[in-house]
Amino acid sequence: MADLPVSPLAPAGFPDLPVIDGVTFASAEAGVKYSGRKDVMLTLLAPGSVLAGVFTRSATRSANVLDCQAKIAADSDAGAAIMVNSGNSNAFTGRAGDESVAALCDAVATATDLPVSRVFTASTGVIGERLPHDRIIAKIAELTGSQDAGGIRGAADAIKTTDTFAKGAGAEIAINGKPVKIAGIAKGSGMIAPDMATMLVYIFTDAKIERAALQSMLSTLTDRTFNAITVDSDTSTSDTLLLGATGASGVDVIGSDSFKTALHDVMLDLAQQVVRDGEGATKFIEIRVTGAASDTDAKTHGLAIANSPLVKTAIAGEDPNWGRIVMAIGKSGAAADRDLLSIRFGDVLVAEKGWVSPDYREEDAAALMKEQEITISVDLGLGQGTATVWTCDLTHGYIRINADYRS
Amino acid sequence: MADLPVSPLAPAGFPDLPVIDGVTFASAEAGVKYSGRKDVMLTLLAPGSVLAGVFTRSATRSANVLDCQAKIAADSDAGAAIMVNSGNSNAFTGRAGDESVAALCDAVATATDLPVSRVFTASTGVIGERLPHDRIIAKIAELTGSQDAGGIRGAADAIKTTDTFAKGAGAEIAINGKPVKIAGIAKGSGMIAPDMATMLVYIFTDAKIERAALQSMLSTLTDRTFNAITVDSDTSTSDTLLLGATGASGVDVIGSDSFKTALHDVMLDLAQQVVRDGEGATKFIEIRVTGAASDTDAKTHGLAIANSPLVKTAIAGEDPNWGRIVMAIGKSGAAADRDLLSIRFGDVLVAEKGWVSPDYREEDAAALMKEQEITISVDLGLGQGTATVWTCDLTHGYIRINADYRS
Repeated sequence: MADLPVSPLAPAGFPDLPVIDGVTFASAEAGVKYSGRKDVMLTLLAPGSVLAGVFTRSATRSANVLDCQAKIAADSDAGAAIMVNSGNSNAFTGRAGDESVAALCDAVATATDLPVSRVFTASTGVIGERLPHDRIIAKIAELTGSQDAGGIRGAADAIKTTDTFAKGAGAEIAINGKPVKIAGIAKGSGMIAPDMATMLVYIFTDAKIERAALQSMLSTLTDRTFNAITVDSDTSTSDTLLLGATGASGVDVIGSDSFKTALHDVMLDLAQQVVRDGEGATKFIEIRVTGAASDTDAKTHGLAIANSPLVKTAIAGEDPNWGRIVMAIGKSGAAADRDLLSIRFGDVLVAEKGWVSPDYREEDAAALMKEQEITISVDLGLGQGTATVWTCDLTHGYIRINADYRS
Repeated sequence: MADLPVSPLAPAGFPDLPVIDGVTFASAEAGVKYSGRKDVMLTLLAPGSVLAGVFTRSATRSANVLDCQAKIAADSDAGAAIMVNSGNSNAFTGRAGDESVAALCDAVATATDLPVSRVFTASTGVIGERLPHDRIIAKIAELTGSQDAGGIRGAADAIKTTDTFAKGAGAEIAINGKPVKIAGIAKGSGMIAPDMATMLVYIFTDAKIERAALQSMLSTLTDRTFNAITVDSDTSTSDTLLLGATGASGVDVIGSDSFKTALHDVMLDLAQQVVRDGEGATKFIEIRVTGAASDTDAKTHGLAIANSPLVKTAIAGEDPNWGRIVMAIGKSGAAADRDLLSIRFGDVLVAEKGWVSPDYREEDAAALMKEQEITISVDLGLGQGTATVWTCDLTHGYIRINADYRS
């Protein structure tokens, strides 16, 4: 993949993330596929940390994902390691893929004195090529020898593939007067679709919480954040989100709404950064669905709009072609009544009661479409179901990236 | 819509179609939206003809579709009229859309002495703009006055929107030594997705058959033809397929395998022509799925591959990136076992048993990808389920057509 220009939707820069007591990072150049850039990261979590995770539901998921899923639910006080490489996804590599995961986990376990069951890996990049795991193993001494509590930015860089910027988000809150911190990183740009976990995401906190409670909170929040974004409707074979809580703050967050809100905000920030780095994206699109027969129906409608190539190309062309939104609602399979439907671009009421609004002036909507951030609101007029999803437009840039390169 | 160059996948020309005894055609320039081209056609079927139809399942389908669905199941010996305009779909036009359909049907019924219940209409083009039906009504005298048994080519031209060529297919077979003829036309290029009827398709035969038997045959064959194609995963609000049998041959075709085969071939030919005129298409792609747990699962896998933007852009770039096919199978939701999967491009075995084949040489697959017609075969290794679907690639041309124009 040649160097891509930074997405026009990128944030101003990588944020200053809080340092999480009990978590250290290192990154290195292993030359898995790319040269002249970092492509492997190793994160260590202190003894007593708990880990929760969500993963792709793909039937062809990678060996690394299968290994993580087998390990994630176990309780252990031993601490944990997370090692991630970019450049090769180790997906659809048969028994060789399983062997690579075992070799990586063994090597990390030996170097860190952790049980193999506490070593988690992920690989992201091209599918179907054997992972040159020896190149990664050769870097483990360097990675364990350079662990740094402030090394999260380097880790965010190392896990990028077609990403045009490193993605991070954090929060610091006080619970009963005591500080609790959250810091997370993500990668993802193409092969992004919802109803699974997400791309690669790693979030850390010094909160104190039991594993089952952490997992439950993570799963709930994933549905409203990473599972509510789409770039291109294609679901990765490698998607992994791990959330580690070290407990170092001493603050028990079970039942804490402020912790849940802060975690939600960090997850949504990272998820939206993935959309902002959608391959070829020039517009950031929020789709708010209300009045659906159920929340599930609302999300189905929202994703049908967000995944429609005709809606996405119309927005790329700054055309308020709301007929394509009607089309997407019609095909979604969820309940809709043409004559109860209303549609807005931003604050502009476009259509109501099954037809264009009498007050609608196309120049108002056309002006809104020139913005970089566009909100589409759809009310079904049927019930109380709501959902919000996020996506980007479909442009020549997406075709260039995916027809001309093998990422 | 500016004039588009003819698709590189277009057939050499419009075929010589057999004349169907009992069916006449006329077309005219009504100026619904386009100027300087035909945009309305009227077809008349003789008394005694029977009609079958399949329609979009969109929840936001057009007023014309709703009207046709209400009429199609009735038995009548009165003959029938089919009037179609391009340039405006009369979809999502609320009560005004119903009024337009009623006005058109009344005017045709009066001019032809048919009951209103035997007048079928369709409209195709932009969604959400009021249909200027008076312009069409003003042309009815010209249309009824110029009916011609050989006018099917003009009708095929009149119903085009973003189509770059007129689509026709026909067959002549002998049953018990007596000739039976089939002739059909279609339009469609974008907003093409399966699991509904299709775009606009009109097929005529002089076969003799009862309505219920004709409908049953049509529905069965639609699943293997029009419901097995996709251009862009977006489902139209106007899709209509009408099949009229005049009985003029005197040949009863109930239970005739040769008639069913000929009708299937005509439908598949028209369906494939729609794919060959897919917006921006440069490659015609056949996806054969075998060994699935069921036929339904096979079709789900086939369509997941056919609708994947990453698969379609890889083919546009002539990249045998089979990892994206693995990805699409994984996300489809139908049963798959990574380690039983095999994939071929043409005759080249790419992957088997969950990994790249030991004999695979990428240059063999890369050579195949330069062809204009590409076959992808996937065997799931699970059961006896099979399906074949057809699609095209996703190119800069699709973005240009849909981001730069309002069709």
